[in-house]
Amino acid sequence: MLDYKLLEALATVLEVGGFERAGDVLGLTQSAISQRIKALEVRLGQPVLVRHPHLAATPAGQRLLNHYQRVCLLERELGHALPTLEVASPRLRIAVNADSLVTWWASAVSDFCQREDVLLDLVIEDQDVGLKRLRDGDVAACLCASDQPIAGARCVPLGTMAYHPMATPRYIARYFPDGPTESAFRRAPAIVYGPHDQLQHRFLARFGYHGPFPYHLCPESEGFVRLASAGMGYGMMPMMQVREPVERGELISLAPGHALEVPLYWHFWRHSGTLLERLTSTLRAVHLT
Amino acid sequence: MLDYKLLEALATVLEVGGFERAGDVLGLTQSAISQRIKALEVRLGQPVLVRHPHLAATPAGQRLLNHYQRVCLLERELGHALPTLEVASPRLRIAVNADSLVTWWASAVSDFCQREDVLLDLVIEDQDVGLKRLRDGDVAACLCASDQPIAGARCVPLGTMAYHPMATPRYIARYFPDGPTESAFRRAPAIVYGPHDQLQHRFLARFGYHGPFPYHLCPESEGFVRLASAGMGYGMMPMMQVREPVERGELISLAPGHALEVPLYWHFWRHSGTLLERLTSTLRAVHLT
Repeated sequence: MLDYKLLEALATVLEVGGFERAGDVLGLTQSAISQRIKALEVRLGQPVLVRHPHLAATPAGQRLLNHYQRVCLLERELGHALPTLEVASPRLRIAVNADSLVTWWASAVSDFCQREDVLLDLVIEDQDVGLKRLRDGDVAACLCASDQPIAGARCVPLGTMAYHPMATPRYIARYFPDGPTESAFRRAPAIVYGPHDQLQHRFLARFGYHGPFPYHLCPESEGFVRLASAGMGYGMMPMMQVREPVERGELISLAPGHALEVPLYWHFWRHSGTLLERLTSTLRAVHLT
Repeated sequence: MLDYKLLEALATVLEVGGFERAGDVLGLTQSAISQRIKALEVRLGQPVLVRHPHLAATPAGQRLLNHYQRVCLLERELGHALPTLEVASPRLRIAVNADSLVTWWASAVSDFCQREDVLLDLVIEDQDVGLKRLRDGDVAACLCASDQPIAGARCVPLGTMAYHPMATPRYIARYFPDGPTESAFRRAPAIVYGPHDQLQHRFLARFGYHGPFPYHLCPESEGFVRLASAGMGYGMMPMMQVREPVERGELISLAPGHALEVPLYWHFWRHSGTLLERLTSTLRAVHLT
């Protein structure tokens, strides 16, 4: 049997980002934490942590962490059956895409978390990285736009989010006086989430435009909306994120009827107890609009 | 003299995240891009790019990129003096803390960017990582809470942001019926931005509390507010970010009069032309509240 005290030390060091703080959390000295990590590495015959460029698990450490988190979830089930055990509430580590997090996510899971006494450890990632984290066992579930299945995980479709090309009326009057034309696309500053953001390209392709265009890069969902609201550019945004500025007339679509539908999928480990199953049921009940 | 076509290829590959896309942007084949990167590596005698875990500059590549960006900024100055040169507008790469980005940043810089025809490449980082990026030459400027000076950069104080411990009235009635007491802190779920987030600890220390407390982790500024608005926890938020939910009575402070003041500093390269100087003047005129 593994010594779970060692795994707990590893998980805590990674969660709080340091040996001294992990000691504070577990009521141990920093040196006791170091000894536990060392003991784990001796047993495993290889390092579980790297220090540079920042504290992180090695692939082997990640495997151990994955296993530890699954055991915690199973212990939690046991704690419900045997309440006198007083099993601590686990923190559920989940990768979520930023647009969901700033729109429907919190209201969808709030009751669940309070009822089940669950704490969340949210990681903000877009699809490829989120799924990689799931595969590596770094997160227990991943909410993203990819339906690519991961071995050992289930994939459940949750619906779609509609993205509209939004900007201020003044911006549109200035840069799109004749609507979405090639010459407008060529000089109107767009706002793009990151180099891998395909929404802007998909939108332009709808109008047969594949040429260069000026753009700001802003990898933060709400900041993205703020740049558009300040008149700096236009960008593809989930309608549910901009309902208020739209109602106030601050943001409008520059091409009504040309929304892009982005599907959302929920990936989660099988065989990790029923907590994730119940969270999945909660998410299935959400009606994305 | 360096061959700036090679540096342009390197900068474009890193900006768009791939050789093929860089070719599209520069009107070259993927193989021509590869040859330019290769030529740069031959001249330098070491790699400028790593492919794994994701495409990134080596430290040497980063130095070249830093130099290239400075030259672009200086060229831009020249373009103003000699408009017939038709110098392309550079993208200004800046590290910004998320809380500023989702509050005052866009309205502060919007006029400047439009007037000066500047595109932004925003990187969301908290202070330590943002300053490291500045030191490495990955960004031209960094907005953060640290006044730690960086060699070759100037540091300008911009004011302070006030963080308040906010939650829904219902949450406060449930978890803080007797106000901010030790027993309440021990069981009320907090929301923490990340393992290095010190605001929550600083707030608790004000009340002499240094014990454990349950918390959700949410490293996304607006998502953080959404979790609190959904009643999942309390957390330290800039008042200017939550003005609307506060006006609607959805969020209130659980300890009025116990805001934490966080200073903001603007760090930027010296000797990169006057564009950054003018942006700095624009930011100095902001009145944070």
